[in-house]
Amino acid sequence: MTEPTAAILVIGNEILSGKVVDTNSPFLAAELRKLGVALRRILTVPDEPETIAMAIQDLRGSYDHVFTSGGVGPTHDDVTMEGIALGLGRRVIRHPDLEAGIRGYLGEKVNDAHLKMAEVPEGATLIQDPSLNFPTIQVENIYVLPGIPEILRKKFESLKERFSDAPYYVRVIYTCCNESAIASSLHRALEEFPALMLGSYPKLDDPEYRVKLTLESKDGDYVQRAFDRLVALLPMGAVVRTE
Amino acid sequence: MTEPTAAILVIGNEILSGKVVDTNSPFLAAELRKLGVALRRILTVPDEPETIAMAIQDLRGSYDHVFTSGGVGPTHDDVTMEGIALGLGRRVIRHPDLEAGIRGYLGEKVNDAHLKMAEVPEGATLIQDPSLNFPTIQVENIYVLPGIPEILRKKFESLKERFSDAPYYVRVIYTCCNESAIASSLHRALEEFPALMLGSYPKLDDPEYRVKLTLESKDGDYVQRAFDRLVALLPMGAVVRTE
Repeated sequence: MTEPTAAILVIGNEILSGKVVDTNSPFLAAELRKLGVALRRILTVPDEPETIAMAIQDLRGSYDHVFTSGGVGPTHDDVTMEGIALGLGRRVIRHPDLEAGIRGYLGEKVNDAHLKMAEVPEGATLIQDPSLNFPTIQVENIYVLPGIPEILRKKFESLKERFSDAPYYVRVIYTCCNESAIASSLHRALEEFPALMLGSYPKLDDPEYRVKLTLESKDGDYVQRAFDRLVALLPMGAVVRTE
Repeated sequence: MTEPTAAILVIGNEILSGKVVDTNSPFLAAELRKLGVALRRILTVPDEPETIAMAIQDLRGSYDHVFTSGGVGPTHDDVTMEGIALGLGRRVIRHPDLEAGIRGYLGEKVNDAHLKMAEVPEGATLIQDPSLNFPTIQVENIYVLPGIPEILRKKFESLKERFSDAPYYVRVIYTCCNESAIASSLHRALEEFPALMLGSYPKLDDPEYRVKLTLESKDGDYVQRAFDRLVALLPMGAVVRTE
């Protein structure tokens, strides 16, 4: 049961200073899960080329896919390309196809800020898609996505079939017990089904249930057998509802 | 202008698998900002003691304060205490005061799952507060907070005066230009005010403005002078509104 792995690198002082809530990594987490890709890290760092470079060096060697979010616009604080290039030991170049596209679109009005959008780490690939105004930049196993949520989503949508793998099977049990009362049942179920991914999520002040249990695996039959066994192991009357 | 720094370590497979959206780190980011603490990293990792240990080793040496979120309940997947202990090279012990409190509260009904809640890294401090049912655990510069947002908020509320420092002063400019048209003005303002923290945040499809600029510093007069200068530098008619 090996599966592709991924990490997300969120770049932006605005997230760390609490001015903007990062909705991109929750979106990517849910999408990667649906594709069967195991997201292993989310790291948020400031707009600093050296910091981005160190994060890239760490993440790109440890996971199959790395997605960056943010820091790719035309202003002074957009340093993602510089950081990635530094992390890979490459130069930043002005990509001729991007430059030609920008000049073609803007004509005489083009300025240095516009042309900053053509800068990429040397050796970057442009992923073109008819749904996009601007191609997605890929360098090695790193996909460079913008911080603006609407555009990030559109770009990921156009990329996602590349990452498709077998999906997870999930069953859910809602119980009216608290965690202390069911911990031994969970422990026993995991002894019998060691490959099961078993999550236990308490909820406060919910009239319906106290703890939600999620059972997951890429083997649907295994999940079903673990589910049947856990329902039998739980205290009498504990199960409120299942999904 | 040195200021205390912080990192947040979010622990939880449920975040990485996209089943739960992390609202704790946005909350802490905003609170730390108000207190004048510079949040430098947010890292989300799975429920794995070794992974938590490595993250703790890295973060606790690099930042003044480390806040962990999640993984402190009574079930099999609650491994934060074990991970922190491993990262610090300490044993996990059952804290006598916590054990006494739990036994006093539950009496005969107490079980191993309940008593797991008394386990802490050796040398941990209990931070008691009348507003809390259960003390907050501190080990060195690490504050161990629970994943349940309501409880995390209550605990942070009781802690926060420890971290208080000078606040940031903020001014905001909304402009109807896009980033390419104002990049050179921003660049110029930063040359003249190199210590200014200047953020540029484009917004799509907003009828009122295209880019929001934030100017920040712990020196209120400096921010005001930078603000006046930037307003003068921006293209004629660019400023829609200021705050």
